[in-house]
Amino acid sequence: MVHQATTSAPVNIACIKYWGKRDTKLILPTNSSLSVTLDQDHLRSTTTSRADPEFTKDRLWLNGNEEEIKPGSRTHTCIAELKALRKTTVEDKNSSAPKLSTYHVHISSYNNFPTAAGLASSASGFAALVSSLAALYELPVSPKDLSIIARQGSGSACRSLFGGYVAWEEGSASDGSDSYAVQVATESHWPGIHALICVVNDAKKGTSSTSGMQRTVETSALLQHRIKEVVPKRMADISKAIQEKDFDTFARITMADSNQFHAVALDTTPPIFYMNDVSRGVIAVIEEYNRAAGKIKAAYTFDAGPNAVIYAPEENLKEIIQLIVKFFPQQAEFKDPFALFGGKLEGRVPEGFNENVTKVWEAGSVKGLIHTKVGGGPRVLGKEEALLDGNGLPNERVKRKWDL
Amino acid sequence: MVHQATTSAPVNIACIKYWGKRDTKLILPTNSSLSVTLDQDHLRSTTTSRADPEFTKDRLWLNGNEEEIKPGSRTHTCIAELKALRKTTVEDKNSSAPKLSTYHVHISSYNNFPTAAGLASSASGFAALVSSLAALYELPVSPKDLSIIARQGSGSACRSLFGGYVAWEEGSASDGSDSYAVQVATESHWPGIHALICVVNDAKKGTSSTSGMQRTVETSALLQHRIKEVVPKRMADISKAIQEKDFDTFARITMADSNQFHAVALDTTPPIFYMNDVSRGVIAVIEEYNRAAGKIKAAYTFDAGPNAVIYAPEENLKEIIQLIVKFFPQQAEFKDPFALFGGKLEGRVPEGFNENVTKVWEAGSVKGLIHTKVGGGPRVLGKEEALLDGNGLPNERVKRKWDL
Repeated sequence: MVHQATTSAPVNIACIKYWGKRDTKLILPTNSSLSVTLDQDHLRSTTTSRADPEFTKDRLWLNGNEEEIKPGSRTHTCIAELKALRKTTVEDKNSSAPKLSTYHVHISSYNNFPTAAGLASSASGFAALVSSLAALYELPVSPKDLSIIARQGSGSACRSLFGGYVAWEEGSASDGSDSYAVQVATESHWPGIHALICVVNDAKKGTSSTSGMQRTVETSALLQHRIKEVVPKRMADISKAIQEKDFDTFARITMADSNQFHAVALDTTPPIFYMNDVSRGVIAVIEEYNRAAGKIKAAYTFDAGPNAVIYAPEENLKEIIQLIVKFFPQQAEFKDPFALFGGKLEGRVPEGFNENVTKVWEAGSVKGLIHTKVGGGPRVLGKEEALLDGNGLPNERVKRKWDL
Repeated sequence: MVHQATTSAPVNIACIKYWGKRDTKLILPTNSSLSVTLDQDHLRSTTTSRADPEFTKDRLWLNGNEEEIKPGSRTHTCIAELKALRKTTVEDKNSSAPKLSTYHVHISSYNNFPTAAGLASSASGFAALVSSLAALYELPVSPKDLSIIARQGSGSACRSLFGGYVAWEEGSASDGSDSYAVQVATESHWPGIHALICVVNDAKKGTSSTSGMQRTVETSALLQHRIKEVVPKRMADISKAIQEKDFDTFARITMADSNQFHAVALDTTPPIFYMNDVSRGVIAVIEEYNRAAGKIKAAYTFDAGPNAVIYAPEENLKEIIQLIVKFFPQQAEFKDPFALFGGKLEGRVPEGFNENVTKVWEAGSVKGLIHTKVGGGPRVLGKEEALLDGNGLPNERVKRKWDL
């Protein structure tokens, strides 16, 4: 009998940003955060885990390339925690259950988006890893419990254990037992929130978020004020906005918190910059779009890189895509997953829009656009989606071209 | 008899930034600030003021172009305050003094640097205006008193009433009587501080500092913390560093405060950006220069625009100019006022410098370099420097080409 499970897990993009750890080993954050889970129909990590008494060691492949699982590494921690849960919650309680916790595992993971897209794959990757092992081990635990494990792989991964609108509560316990993800609202509560990811060309590799956030903790004179005074109120306010489907408030807080995250990064010694001139151009376009409309029709947010994510109600997406394409001409064809354009996408600006807020950028400055929406949590997939072959090695599926 | 005076006044560049007013009419700041006055041998505003009973109204020319003096304008306020001081401190006490306060004035002002350089000319301009009228009126008042008047023209102008290292104390009185400039140290106390101004090309006109700073006051969640908790300590620490000629501390505070000023600008709704990718490139080069040296050899600071000002001890300037020219190739000839290169300036990097921190930018990205140093306060000039002709109109001198 083959002991194997395959799951997929989504990407999430935060509205209230996580920036700073109070415990770097357990990955306990200095403030709570909140994100929107994006639809796995468009962006996902898929992972197959297999336990076999014949395996001689734990092994992991990402997109077909083996990655060493170093003792004490984050991946090692997640696997060890899940094996321990298999033992205590399954094998110790049912002596007939196979002793999977004593077998080595082979894990094969695949992201359906190119690393070059600059989208953080660690969140969906660790969420898929944790959910596939949890499925393999048939663990009788909640997504919340799994989020505590995923958190130790990559902080923001804990939020990818749920669909919809998800908070990561910072917690206060020193062992991290109360620092987990909770679902603020399901994707079906407020399904009309769409996202346009603007993949921005960037020559320069920025500061890694892991090292960058700790430099901010150590040197920013503003971060503690953000943590203590600003974020708690924003968490409460944006949660309420989500409950009430109040896009205006949701958008205002999202933009302000993105800007404040980049502000504390800049208030770091040496300063950290993630946005570049193209990112600033996207901000200028969205700010003018809202101004010209006399109301908030879209919100931008930027993670630790130059890419923009634009959140907006579904009905505005056509206008927004035309607007972005106007100022950031596309070289690549726009995959139009919601069939808004029937192949005829041309740039245009809405009435009253002041075109002088930025220039028309060189084609390829925004090198790709991905249209997606709020979506669900991890999925357990069928055997036909498995990423390991009969020998427990990555199969052909991990060599698929990115299917963006 | 012609009643006339000509003075010149310097530019100053802040190390602790002024950003936010508690009174927009009186120009009272939300926090104290501190700057270095730059040498008038290189950058200056020159102003001639003449009082004449034949004049029919107050008139002002900037670089030969007449500017209307609107009632209630900042220029109008400064002229009115100085006329009032003429009356109360001179004419009321000495009945034989000419009643210059009852005459209209003609004022001709000239900046020896192009507006296109993006250097704030309002500080040197208002300092020259105020000092020329004070000289014309032979006012028995101190630079401190004049700084209160200049402050009402342009906040940072108050600091240009002194040479050397100058604080603008925020004060607390609602009438602004205790919000003035004080000299922390003379230019001769610490004469070895040089400055390299990197004039950065910028297509886009940024947010004016007047409107930008009030938007920050109204919307930033971080500004109040900066004002109350951060700036007071930095003011004390940098003043001590200046007293002790401690460049390391001076430089660390200068860089941190520039970054924090831009951080609170970014924390504004809508966000304000003054630095661009070229500015970020200059920061990357200076940070790497310090890292490679294992000590702080230079400090960058940016005002409300993309231009960098690099402060450094005199002995490092040759190396710094070579370094900047290496990554930001020059189209314009470098005027070498301190004769460092004998006409042979070529880019090079110091030993151990990691050249990957930025790219070699397109020539003209930094469109000019100005090498100057700490300098003195306003100067009274001779008649041969006057900028008004026999008819009280701007003379040929205001048509000189910028002599940078």
